[in-house]
Amino acid sequence: MKNFVVHQLLEHALITHPNQEIISGKHHFTYKEFYTRVIRLSNSLKELGIKKGSVIGVLDVNSHRFLEMHFALSMLGAVIHTINFRLAPEQMVYSMVHAGDDWIFVSDIFSPVVKPLFSKFPNWVLMSDNSSQTLPEVENFHHYEKLIEKGLIKPIPEADNIKETDIFSIFYTTGTTGKPKGIPYEHKAILTGAIQLFHHLALHKHGARLSSRDVFMPLIPFFHIHAWGMAFFPIYLGTKLVLPGAADAEAQQLLIKKEKVSWLNMVPTQLQMLLEQKDFGNVKVLTGGSPFASGIAQRATKANVKFSLIYGGSDQLASAISIVPEDIEANTTQAQEWLRVGLCPLPLVEISIKDKNGNEVPHDGATLGSIWIKSPWLPKEYYKEPEISKEHFINGWFKTGDLGFFHPNHLIYVADREGDAIKSGGEWIPTGMLESIISEHKAVELIAIIAIKNEQWGQRPLAILKTKEKISDKELLDFLQTKVNEGKLAKFWIPDSFIFVDEIPLTSAGKLNKKELKKKYSN
Amino acid sequence: MKNFVVHQLLEHALITHPNQEIISGKHHFTYKEFYTRVIRLSNSLKELGIKKGSVIGVLDVNSHRFLEMHFALSMLGAVIHTINFRLAPEQMVYSMVHAGDDWIFVSDIFSPVVKPLFSKFPNWVLMSDNSSQTLPEVENFHHYEKLIEKGLIKPIPEADNIKETDIFSIFYTTGTTGKPKGIPYEHKAILTGAIQLFHHLALHKHGARLSSRDVFMPLIPFFHIHAWGMAFFPIYLGTKLVLPGAADAEAQQLLIKKEKVSWLNMVPTQLQMLLEQKDFGNVKVLTGGSPFASGIAQRATKANVKFSLIYGGSDQLASAISIVPEDIEANTTQAQEWLRVGLCPLPLVEISIKDKNGNEVPHDGATLGSIWIKSPWLPKEYYKEPEISKEHFINGWFKTGDLGFFHPNHLIYVADREGDAIKSGGEWIPTGMLESIISEHKAVELIAIIAIKNEQWGQRPLAILKTKEKISDKELLDFLQTKVNEGKLAKFWIPDSFIFVDEIPLTSAGKLNKKELKKKYSN
Repeated sequence: MKNFVVHQLLEHALITHPNQEIISGKHHFTYKEFYTRVIRLSNSLKELGIKKGSVIGVLDVNSHRFLEMHFALSMLGAVIHTINFRLAPEQMVYSMVHAGDDWIFVSDIFSPVVKPLFSKFPNWVLMSDNSSQTLPEVENFHHYEKLIEKGLIKPIPEADNIKETDIFSIFYTTGTTGKPKGIPYEHKAILTGAIQLFHHLALHKHGARLSSRDVFMPLIPFFHIHAWGMAFFPIYLGTKLVLPGAADAEAQQLLIKKEKVSWLNMVPTQLQMLLEQKDFGNVKVLTGGSPFASGIAQRATKANVKFSLIYGGSDQLASAISIVPEDIEANTTQAQEWLRVGLCPLPLVEISIKDKNGNEVPHDGATLGSIWIKSPWLPKEYYKEPEISKEHFINGWFKTGDLGFFHPNHLIYVADREGDAIKSGGEWIPTGMLESIISEHKAVELIAIIAIKNEQWGQRPLAILKTKEKISDKELLDFLQTKVNEGKLAKFWIPDSFIFVDEIPLTSAGKLNKKELKKKYSN
Repeated sequence: MKNFVVHQLLEHALITHPNQEIISGKHHFTYKEFYTRVIRLSNSLKELGIKKGSVIGVLDVNSHRFLEMHFALSMLGAVIHTINFRLAPEQMVYSMVHAGDDWIFVSDIFSPVVKPLFSKFPNWVLMSDNSSQTLPEVENFHHYEKLIEKGLIKPIPEADNIKETDIFSIFYTTGTTGKPKGIPYEHKAILTGAIQLFHHLALHKHGARLSSRDVFMPLIPFFHIHAWGMAFFPIYLGTKLVLPGAADAEAQQLLIKKEKVSWLNMVPTQLQMLLEQKDFGNVKVLTGGSPFASGIAQRATKANVKFSLIYGGSDQLASAISIVPEDIEANTTQAQEWLRVGLCPLPLVEISIKDKNGNEVPHDGATLGSIWIKSPWLPKEYYKEPEISKEHFINGWFKTGDLGFFHPNHLIYVADREGDAIKSGGEWIPTGMLESIISEHKAVELIAIIAIKNEQWGQRPLAILKTKEKISDKELLDFLQTKVNEGKLAKFWIPDSFIFVDEIPLTSAGKLNKKELKKKYSN
């Protein structure tokens, strides 16, 4: 009997797809070559003293080296800490100290940024094409490519003794509130969560349906749940994998064309940037991570991008994907809209939306409540945070901190973060839904709604906009009035004022950084 | 955190697809109604004293009642023994005694057959539409529908405490050699094996690719690995499920038409019988269990039946499915042929084909060897058979007793059972491959090859044929000579003699019953 452990995916793909390609920058590897690099690396890491239970921080964009580390460390039973490079420097250091990183592997893209940390941690490995490059001032330095060069091609006996309940990885939430929280994942949890997600996407005839012949490119960074599981699934399946490195939207578009990429994942803001590019082929996109504005969805459909929505997060993995209900005709506008607003729990996942008293809200398409999750791949706790864990992991359920409602057909809509929603005159205004409606105006490029204090109503919405062309408050108000007339908007949701800006700050996960916006505009 | 336990599938489907249909004979249930019956049943079974660790034998065709038993017993932590109704009576009794059945649930279809057993086992439940029917002479008798009627609709507290490593079911191999062997399966193993199989089928663009909108009908009986997992997957997915009961090929064809069945599983002989029916719609079929003759495959393709092949068994669950290699154009004759002869291990499954010395045979498309399997859902042993277990379960591997070879592209061909292959002049003749070639002749309906003793060669092949029209030995020899000329057949494979019969006996799994044929014709 075999275990569900990460490195077995690669061993399997090696048997079934030895000549399949992994592309990363100028590098082209077959699975066989990739496997050989992993084995050499793993043997060298063992020489460095890395063993079961060691914690290794890796700081890189989505590269072949970062992916190799997933499998090489899995074979040794070491824990990979995928460092979130979009954290503020002090938060990044906090996560590295909190996780207890024994070694830090950093790519040359990030080595200048972390220079101040060289003296704080003793053991560093530089990941770079240039093998003569070093990290000065570092106590114990190795070059990644030299480790591979020196590494023997011989089996790793430890690999056969890794258990599916051993910890495979740890990553930190972006910490929009407070300090980052670490989440440790067992091999089995991270694999079954990812495999269920991708497999399930293959079952649906609409949206980002995938097949064994797709070419995958993860635009979600590995530090974010291993690119929403894309570090595993293409390997599991033996498909062609394209790693985008630090490619910007224009370079991504070129890669899609050149390598015939057909299946990608990205947050809505990345999709929006890609949509600014000229035609980039007939691709399928899994998106999510924040409310998906109808304006972007409409532009995606126009560009022939087939999309599905995922609901999940660092602390719950994948919980739901969007589906078209059985009674809706495929390929209609209505079907498209369901893909944006109708989430179905993955099989084996339970989702409840509860009111203040802990009772499930009615399935009426309107009543907002707090979203709770139960699933086979839920973590047990935040790493070394017993108090915070108790607030979120309760009786086998996870309290997400998201606000949503049930459609009458039991599908789920995620409306907002609980901390972001606005309470105006005792009534909720979910900012995500309001942003979505305003995004439908053709002049709007990016829109964030935050609460401002109001003596009469408690809170009122303020709209912060980045526009593509000049537009007046009056024009926006007229547009929103038509939405009120169409019954799509409650009149009291209309923002009291509009602020036009050149840039809207984003969080490390590419979401609207409302914390920063509130700091600047709320009071 | 949730466990992977069987009844959770139903609880999930109830949330997402409460109004989906389950059809069984004249009965139409929504998932909600089905769930209510299961809860009532489970509460009644508890009253009968059925509890964690109880073993319950069920003897029925694929009906809603049999399916209900799967979930009701799962909630109580009891073990379902799916009795193989195609076993010889003495073997059936052997399995019931060996499993230690505490209760026997029998449908009215089978109650007359098992009448001699009424006095041997004390506790019986009759599954029947007619609620006034009883089983005379039975010590402790209950009627299934009355149990449901009496059962309370209240939660089963035990259901929350079932562990994924608890035993869910036990079933017995058909025992073509020796006595039947029981195989106990944990919840987790049986579910992950089934889910991986069906999910994986959704990924491939060819063959029996399935989707969340398919309508399922299992023609494989539940006693055979829970209908190759179909007791679970449609429920897991929340799709429409049609249970064929005791329907014959003609009635099956009518059901397919009426209920818009799109996805079925069956052994090749069942497919052959269905193909005798007039057009039965645009269906997808998963087949396997014995070598799939090219003659039947050709007829299936002509009838617009899309098929995939599965390789697995009671003692290994699903191990491989057929795929079209990446370099083969879809929808070509070549692609069709690969679906018949090219098996790819499911991800996480390892398959090795070994020679006499235990070394893997070369991947040359010819060298036959013994097939070994390693997978996450492999059982640990045969039930209460330590000695036989030791011969088959070795160092985490399972010795299947099948003979096969690797194609040069690493896909696998299963040629024969080791005990069936013929050794002629020191060379193997795999009977499955020879049967396949002979089946291509239009007059041949069913063909079995067995070994007969031969002084000069050791063994020689004998062909036993059921034909659709009269045909002479000479015509068959001419036909086979053309196959020799085409390079598809070695001359020494041509059978020495042909026997024409009215019926060829089949085993309980619908395979050619070679044991019986050998008894009659071999010596």
